[in-house]
Amino acid sequence: MSESNLVREQHEFWMRRAIQLAYQGQYSTRPNPNVGCVIVKDGQHVGEGFHPKAGQPHAEVFAMRDAGEAARGATAYVTLEPCAHYGRTPPCAKGLVEAGVAQVVVACPDPNPLVAGKGVQILRDAGIEVITGVCEAEAHQLNLGFLKAMATSMPHVRLKVASSLDGRTAMASGESKWITGELARQDVQHWRAISGAVITGIETVLADDCQLNVRQLDGIDDLSKIVQPQRIVLDRQGRLPLTAKMLEQPESVMVMGPFRQELADLGVVQFEIQPLAELLKILVQQHQIYDVMVEAGATLSTAFLQEQLVDEMISYVAPTLLGRSARAMFTADFNRMAEQLRFKLKDVTQLGDDIRLRLIPSQETL
Amino acid sequence: MSESNLVREQHEFWMRRAIQLAYQGQYSTRPNPNVGCVIVKDGQHVGEGFHPKAGQPHAEVFAMRDAGEAARGATAYVTLEPCAHYGRTPPCAKGLVEAGVAQVVVACPDPNPLVAGKGVQILRDAGIEVITGVCEAEAHQLNLGFLKAMATSMPHVRLKVASSLDGRTAMASGESKWITGELARQDVQHWRAISGAVITGIETVLADDCQLNVRQLDGIDDLSKIVQPQRIVLDRQGRLPLTAKMLEQPESVMVMGPFRQELADLGVVQFEIQPLAELLKILVQQHQIYDVMVEAGATLSTAFLQEQLVDEMISYVAPTLLGRSARAMFTADFNRMAEQLRFKLKDVTQLGDDIRLRLIPSQETL
Ligand SMILES: NC(=O)c1ccc[n+]([C@@H]2O[C@H](COP(=O)([O-])OP(=O)(O)OC[C@H]3O[C@@H](n4cnc5c(N)ncnc54)[C@H](OP(=O)(O)O)[C@@H]3O)[C@@H](O)[C@H]2O)c1
Ligand SMILES: NC(=O)c1ccc[n+]([C@@H]2O[C@H](COP(=O)([O-])OP(=O)(O)OC[C@H]3O[C@@H](n4cnc5c(N)ncnc54)[C@H](OP(=O)(O)O)[C@@H]3O)[C@@H](O)[C@H]2O)c1
Repeated sequence: MSESNLVREQHEFWMRRAIQLAYQGQYSTRPNPNVGCVIVKDGQHVGEGFHPKAGQPHAEVFAMRDAGEAARGATAYVTLEPCAHYGRTPPCAKGLVEAGVAQVVVACPDPNPLVAGKGVQILRDAGIEVITGVCEAEAHQLNLGFLKAMATSMPHVRLKVASSLDGRTAMASGESKWITGELARQDVQHWRAISGAVITGIETVLADDCQLNVRQLDGIDDLSKIVQPQRIVLDRQGRLPLTAKMLEQPESVMVMGPFRQELADLGVVQFEIQPLAELLKILVQQHQIYDVMVEAGATLSTAFLQEQLVDEMISYVAPTLLGRSARAMFTADFNRMAEQLRFKLKDVTQLGDDIRLRLIPSQETL
Repeated sequence: MSESNLVREQHEFWMRRAIQLAYQGQYSTRPNPNVGCVIVKDGQHVGEGFHPKAGQPHAEVFAMRDAGEAARGATAYVTLEPCAHYGRTPPCAKGLVEAGVAQVVVACPDPNPLVAGKGVQILRDAGIEVITGVCEAEAHQLNLGFLKAMATSMPHVRLKVASSLDGRTAMASGESKWITGELARQDVQHWRAISGAVITGIETVLADDCQLNVRQLDGIDDLSKIVQPQRIVLDRQGRLPLTAKMLEQPESVMVMGPFRQELADLGVVQFEIQPLAELLKILVQQHQIYDVMVEAGATLSTAFLQEQLVDEMISYVAPTLLGRSARAMFTADFNRMAEQLRFKLKDVTQLGDDIRLRLIPSQETL
């Protein structure tokens, strides 16, 4: 292997470690991004840290504390460009300069066009060697919503669907329990827990009295440590009953519909009736909600798809056939193959007897 | 590891090698079973063979020839109980006795209830130690059709379906090309090639003028070496056009329908109109067709499923949504969840952007 390849592989090795660390904050940093940092000197790991929670120090600060004097002359691996601004903490780029690191390796640039490159510039001005773009694609996955929102003011939207093999969600009568099994239902909790908000349609609330909160997470004993998602109900006719289970925690409920004083009295945030795209933009700009999960019935799910607002579809398929008169998962009416909505398959996972597909809408026609 | 575990692992190691060998005949032995044999002496591999083709010697004969004098005192691993009858060749059990092997390890018993155990008995009577049931489940997969047919007079039936994620096969107009991609279509060729017959419905032939033969197989350059499946058309109104492409090779076409002299003149085998289960039994009993693949439209596919004639469903799912008015893959009308047809998931494989599920119908209700 050539020397430059070897150096590249070492950089990738340590950056992957930093990415792994960043994931430790995945359920708790919102609305802040997940960031990890590893400090390496003479090929030895001397310090590491990750951003655990908004209000707490950034990953670099934890890593520099951990390394202490050993940071001097070392290489710092950071999954996101170190910040250049004074916030609750001084800029991390300055901190790295003061700690005397010799080299900084960065995965993703700062996504905010106004400050992108400034952190790197502070480092370079101080004579520190900076390498960027190492494992960028992997590190990007850490913060799909944050990075998209900073760049475009729109959130990353995941649409969850669950259907039978023949594309049905319920019998014509509405009977629908237990299409997918326990593992699939558990898996849904993870996606909720990395979301700033879960959006649903009023019909789903009326039918299921669902709560859409996180009740169980692999590897997390104490759910009070995570940031619960907001639950957003689209209810243009003001039908949400005040007895709805989700209103037991009204502080994490938001409703789009006609203004209702009784909801305001409960502390529920309300949005004017507006197109889905506008609502999404407001979630980013006014509520720092960058990752949205849509968990709704076929009507609203189809609307999100047809308005091209979905970045990723998480599709659970149960190995069962419900028949032709059962309810369709996707209610658009197309006449020609050219109208079909195609996806790229990101991955497929077996969850007990069910499968989970991760699908990215594709602009390509066949 | 205890000594008996060690011995067991060694037996399994060599039996897996024998199973691998047997697969070399998977496209060519029909109607005979796939069988492999490995001969091992003092922990060393001294001979091996597999059954390549009906009319050629059995696996044990090739392995003994390969081993020569080294077979004396050795252990023979055979994936199927050695035969006890005189056919085109003398019984293999006798051959093993004459070759002087000391031990025979068998995966599957002979499935024919009339002769099961006879091969083993010949060996034991000659003082040879016989161990049975080693890797039986894996070896069983080699000959699903043969083993089922010998035991029950019914073939192993695989139903192939291909649908969109929302369970559709075509637009309402019938427009349907290219739902699944190239890799999925190639994969279908394998399943055809291990089948004794492919069954379809007349509407599929009228719509697609399909041939349902094997035109391409991974790892096989010369397709003349494989046994092509029979193509069976269910045509109760005698609508198959004499110009159908599949009639260019009439010797491998069979039709269930009213008797037609012009088909008889071409050499096409014809069956009386009868229930699907009766037809399947005739395929086993009169035509030595043990593995059947159903590749039909939704009508016939649904009939096979509802009559509980399917042993395994091979389901290709393309990552696309065709909408509510597109044609359903499964046309039964169920009113209650309790009527649903559930499956156990055997495995899932990604084929380009498509996935393939292997599903076993399950009697369990939820
Ligand atoms: N299988 C699954 O994954 C799954 C998941 C969730 C729910 N479900 C089932 O789905 C059923 C309900 O399905 P559904 O299709 O009737 O309900 P839904 O999609 O959850 O809700 C429909 C409501 O959402 C609102 N809506 C739809 N499109 C909109 C748009 N473009 N902008 C703003 N609001 C919009 C409308 O409210 P207004 O009437 O106020 O305008 C509409 O009545 C339930 O039985 C539930 O159990 C299944
Ligand atoms: N996506 C896929 O995997 C796939 C595969 C194959 C075909 N297709 C498409 O499917 C369409 C045709 O579908 P289809 O449902 O109309 O046709 P089909 O299922 O292939 O054939 C229907 C015919 O099969 C016969 N049949 C049905 N049930 C029977 C039973 N129980 N016993 C004996 N015969 C029986 C009937 O013939 P009689 O009228 O003679 O009684 C019936 O008309 C075509 O457009 C084709 O391209 C799709």
